[in-house]
Amino acid sequence: MFVSASVTCFFAPKIDEPKRSGSLGVSFTIDRGVNVRLTDEGLKFNGKDMRIPTAEYILKSLNYYGGVEVKSNLPLGCGFGLSGAIALASALEINKRLGLNMSLLQLADLAHEAEVLNRTGLGDVVTQCYGGFVVRKKASCPSRCTIDRYLWDIELDFLVIGEMRTSEVLEGSLKDVYRIGKRSLREFLRKPSLENLFKVSKDFAVRCGFVDDRIMDAIEAVESTDGFASMIMLGRGVFAYKGEVLKEFKGKYFRSKVSMCSIGFEKP
Amino acid sequence: MFVSASVTCFFAPKIDEPKRSGSLGVSFTIDRGVNVRLTDEGLKFNGKDMRIPTAEYILKSLNYYGGVEVKSNLPLGCGFGLSGAIALASALEINKRLGLNMSLLQLADLAHEAEVLNRTGLGDVVTQCYGGFVVRKKASCPSRCTIDRYLWDIELDFLVIGEMRTSEVLEGSLKDVYRIGKRSLREFLRKPSLENLFKVSKDFAVRCGFVDDRIMDAIEAVESTDGFASMIMLGRGVFAYKGEVLKEFKGKYFRSKVSMCSIGFEKP
Repeated sequence: MFVSASVTCFFAPKIDEPKRSGSLGVSFTIDRGVNVRLTDEGLKFNGKDMRIPTAEYILKSLNYYGGVEVKSNLPLGCGFGLSGAIALASALEINKRLGLNMSLLQLADLAHEAEVLNRTGLGDVVTQCYGGFVVRKKASCPSRCTIDRYLWDIELDFLVIGEMRTSEVLEGSLKDVYRIGKRSLREFLRKPSLENLFKVSKDFAVRCGFVDDRIMDAIEAVESTDGFASMIMLGRGVFAYKGEVLKEFKGKYFRSKVSMCSIGFEKP
Repeated sequence: MFVSASVTCFFAPKIDEPKRSGSLGVSFTIDRGVNVRLTDEGLKFNGKDMRIPTAEYILKSLNYYGGVEVKSNLPLGCGFGLSGAIALASALEINKRLGLNMSLLQLADLAHEAEVLNRTGLGDVVTQCYGGFVVRKKASCPSRCTIDRYLWDIELDFLVIGEMRTSEVLEGSLKDVYRIGKRSLREFLRKPSLENLFKVSKDFAVRCGFVDDRIMDAIEAVESTDGFASMIMLGRGVFAYKGEVLKEFKGKYFRSKVSMCSIGFEKP
């Protein structure tokens, strides 16, 4: 089972009990993501044993006494929503294997719960249920969320500088982030263009104090070559439109298409 | 732009003003559908000039003074939701060409409106926004509809015997169809398995009086070889799981995968 990575542009987090937790904001899915298959035991990520708390939660919740093997060409902990993708893909695989006949939104709610409880993400699973640029208009679990989508057929550039622990940010004071994120959503919806999305996203990241000098240098380099760029929420990295200049920076660079289709039975 | 065909298993229609019109029920998208591109003028379907009222409505509503060319390996008027697919794909293409920055649900609402006004469909566009087996829990336009999805990774068999004008059925008394359809949805959701979906769908088609002898013969042939089958709503045709025996019947036979992904920029 393939589930796309999800990259968040800006967000307004709300933490309550799992079903009422989530985030407003805009995220998008890309052609890269995770391929997950069930195994007899253990959790492996690209061949290495690893603790993946969201997957453990899914295995336990669905009473599957086996393991999960994940393959991905993206790094964990860098803002690509892999913990949510792994949880959702595992839930879909177990649903199929055990013939549970659970719906996508039931499985997604469970994956979302795994994320909230582990503080690994708040809006990725909702985004991964749809694909494209997904606007979350309500901070909640997938089955209660109201969304809309913009299907822009574009390729983006990415620069990954390093990790950033979502859980640390989500343990901090979220009130200011919520207020800034909510205003960002209003500003984006007033003019829902790609250019405005980048503008709103960068303003959000700066106002929240997430942007350090290396990130800002990379963003400005893209802007000076007539591209748009902002910071990956939450990872030490940059996503950009017409951002080939990111190649020149230290870190891992790649390009990926925005995908309309975020869930697939076949590996892409 | 590619948009999947949508096949309806059962439905409960409601006709009111366009945004409040729609149908409850279950439909699914398949790997086949329509490829649409914008042209200078005229409406063409597989190279032939044709009147496609839903596409005309979209061109006019979005002020696009050009034409549309549709390619499809499915027939019009046989229950594959092509009028909705063409409307949605045209709207997406025009949105892109004119840089309108409209959201998927805004474009889908317009395509749904085109369907309702021409009585060509009530639930196809909602289905085509998502993909897989889509449960419509509210009879309304896409932006107001509540849905859920079952992502069963299967291939189905189809037999197309002939056309059936959706508009004629939708002009008739819909009260009984609504009542039977609503009960069918409850029965399906009580046990949302593939086997029960076929059972509920066949009961629905029979109770509504849509099934003639040729359709019933084909359904029974599939059942006698341990498959499941029901009638395409609304077309003179049959969809089946393990229904290879349909090959032996008069009409057009084909197989197609159920698609998780119903909208794509690339032609599949």
